[in-house]
Amino acid sequence: MIDPKRLQKYSNITRITKKDFINIHPIQAAGKLTPEAKKVLSEFGDGYSVCDMCLEGRLDTINKPPIHDFLTDMAIFMGMDEVRPTAGSRMAMNIIFKVIANPGDVVVIDSLAHYTTYLAAEDNKVKIIEVPHKGHPEFKLNLEAYAEKIEEVNAQTGKKPPFVVLTHVDYNYGNVNDIKIVSKICKDYKIPLVVNGAYSVGVMPIKGKEVGADILIGSGHKSMAASGPIGVLGTTSEWAKKIFSTSTIKGDWSSRQFLQKEYHFFGCPPVYGAPLATLIASFPRVVKRTKQENWDEEIKKIRYFVTEMERIEDVKALGVRPKQHTLTQFETPSLYEASLKHKEKGYFLYKALKKDKIAGIFPGSSKHFKLNTYGLTWDEIKKVAEVFQKIAEENNIKIN
Amino acid sequence: MIDPKRLQKYSNITRITKKDFINIHPIQAAGKLTPEAKKVLSEFGDGYSVCDMCLEGRLDTINKPPIHDFLTDMAIFMGMDEVRPTAGSRMAMNIIFKVIANPGDVVVIDSLAHYTTYLAAEDNKVKIIEVPHKGHPEFKLNLEAYAEKIEEVNAQTGKKPPFVVLTHVDYNYGNVNDIKIVSKICKDYKIPLVVNGAYSVGVMPIKGKEVGADILIGSGHKSMAASGPIGVLGTTSEWAKKIFSTSTIKGDWSSRQFLQKEYHFFGCPPVYGAPLATLIASFPRVVKRTKQENWDEEIKKIRYFVTEMERIEDVKALGVRPKQHTLTQFETPSLYEASLKHKEKGYFLYKALKKDKIAGIFPGSSKHFKLNTYGLTWDEIKKVAEVFQKIAEENNIKIN
Repeated sequence: MIDPKRLQKYSNITRITKKDFINIHPIQAAGKLTPEAKKVLSEFGDGYSVCDMCLEGRLDTINKPPIHDFLTDMAIFMGMDEVRPTAGSRMAMNIIFKVIANPGDVVVIDSLAHYTTYLAAEDNKVKIIEVPHKGHPEFKLNLEAYAEKIEEVNAQTGKKPPFVVLTHVDYNYGNVNDIKIVSKICKDYKIPLVVNGAYSVGVMPIKGKEVGADILIGSGHKSMAASGPIGVLGTTSEWAKKIFSTSTIKGDWSSRQFLQKEYHFFGCPPVYGAPLATLIASFPRVVKRTKQENWDEEIKKIRYFVTEMERIEDVKALGVRPKQHTLTQFETPSLYEASLKHKEKGYFLYKALKKDKIAGIFPGSSKHFKLNTYGLTWDEIKKVAEVFQKIAEENNIKIN
Repeated sequence: MIDPKRLQKYSNITRITKKDFINIHPIQAAGKLTPEAKKVLSEFGDGYSVCDMCLEGRLDTINKPPIHDFLTDMAIFMGMDEVRPTAGSRMAMNIIFKVIANPGDVVVIDSLAHYTTYLAAEDNKVKIIEVPHKGHPEFKLNLEAYAEKIEEVNAQTGKKPPFVVLTHVDYNYGNVNDIKIVSKICKDYKIPLVVNGAYSVGVMPIKGKEVGADILIGSGHKSMAASGPIGVLGTTSEWAKKIFSTSTIKGDWSSRQFLQKEYHFFGCPPVYGAPLATLIASFPRVVKRTKQENWDEEIKKIRYFVTEMERIEDVKALGVRPKQHTLTQFETPSLYEASLKHKEKGYFLYKALKKDKIAGIFPGSSKHFKLNTYGLTWDEIKKVAEVFQKIAEENNIKIN
């Protein structure tokens, strides 16, 4: 039996991160809803709300709300030929491993890839081989090594990898990779290039085909101010037919068929209420915010922030310098030392920040932590830096 | 380039079905948000909002909000041992075909199964063989035939099907199947039974293990008043380990591993903002509404409604009689005849209903249509029946 007391608590759940907090959570900062998304969130809150006027039984053909037009424009925005939404970029990556590779194939991926890239391989019984990085402190990928890794797969298996994956911006250090270096190698070997743009599409300028991507994946809740979970899978027209395959299965007794349904996407991809509605509503603002001059300003802010953080003794930003993305990891041995003496132990930093209405550092982290300053105003950037410095001082750490 | 006029329209999208409409949409009626879900929808609108206090890197272990407790209680509610959320029941079904079957296997399914069951087979290169139904007008499944279909698979392939699927309540006629008949057959053959409860879990009483289900799938946005997309996959403890397998993949160069991640679910299943928060918030009310006496009342209402609808000449409810579920299909040749003479053609019914603030009949349908009266008050039921009768009369159709 269900404990009635437990049952009671479910109807009143609330968030830890309050609305008036500055949120520097590495996976939340660029996903925070726009005012427009907040409005449609309540309008389209019911699960099948975008299906009121579904005439063809397929999500991407709906005109009210303008899903069909939106996907056309999203393709333009991503610099690809065709786009479908997915339940997060992780579902998009899983589809790619399912459709373009066969079990037993070996795919070349970068060693900074998101964990869901590894899981997509595992789930589809595909092997992976990693392109190395240069280790601490920059963790810079050796992009030229894609060529030798492709050769390695060829030597090992007698055939080229079915595709390679490059993570445009990695989730640990926020390193930005030059896609063109890898796409040139891929063109030479005639291997399709899959780019994971979960931390780039929607925050910084990127046009997939222009840099040689055959597939470009983005994340709505990570980088496009969408409630989620929602991702986007963009392809060239060459790959569209295979990836967006329509169903041919037929009931042996009933002869039922579902010819219009794209079966790798479960028919209609599961994004058909708030996720898609908020992605659409935020889109005009997202298009604007990804312009080069806005991104340049974001970079100025993170570089300022890094400088201020590194004034705290023994604090160091990891990843390629100078920073090219707002997602950053810091190593903070001095804060870790302080935590050992603190009554709150590893949680002291999280709690001290919370007191000043700053959220987003993983609870318990003090040795190193990630954060993302995307979308913070200059005032907020300065406040966050000052609060970190204040916490350091309170714990007898020198500020240089 | 993106047309700026198009861009403008995205930020202001609105629904066709307004808030003061009576909504009898077949896939929306039981998914409409509760007041509690509406509240948390805005609180947890951001995509990763439930991850504020993630300490173990896995969704189902989070305690603030109480996701871990909730999943325990959801398992009790479903009468299963363990539950994970998924991006809709279609994702859950896809996982089952991926994990329990191998490519080339043949699975027995009912011929009224949801189209996503067929697509799950196709996507995983699994073949299906259908258990027949008795055709028009009741479309009653021949549940005893599961035995002979299992034998057929055995004869064809030299081995038993890896599992069989039974759709508890089908999406075309709302027929309710007696799971025990099939589970007895499955026990005899020692084959796991997968029950699709997308139209039952959350609206009517069902306890999976009590009726012999090894796997029970439910839908949050279809039948549990959740924003979505979200489904639930419940298993017996016997099946939990295989279906909720944790990752063992290891980076060949980096040695990276993700040992705690359940890889068939993309690590954390993509439900980590509004979908899961609303499912949790609605849960206490959902538990209450599925009690037998409430369901009995829902059945009284649909039966009354069918009686009133069938007073309209040539209108007939399809499916097993008397109705055992609030989801119903009507065949309405008289309304179709009327549409041929009407200036709005096939859309006349949709538009006429809209005038009286009734939504949910597929636009363009008049020959036959589905609807779901779940959750309507007696007054609303009566109003909807009266409006249908009024529309019929306006189009010179006799009311008996």
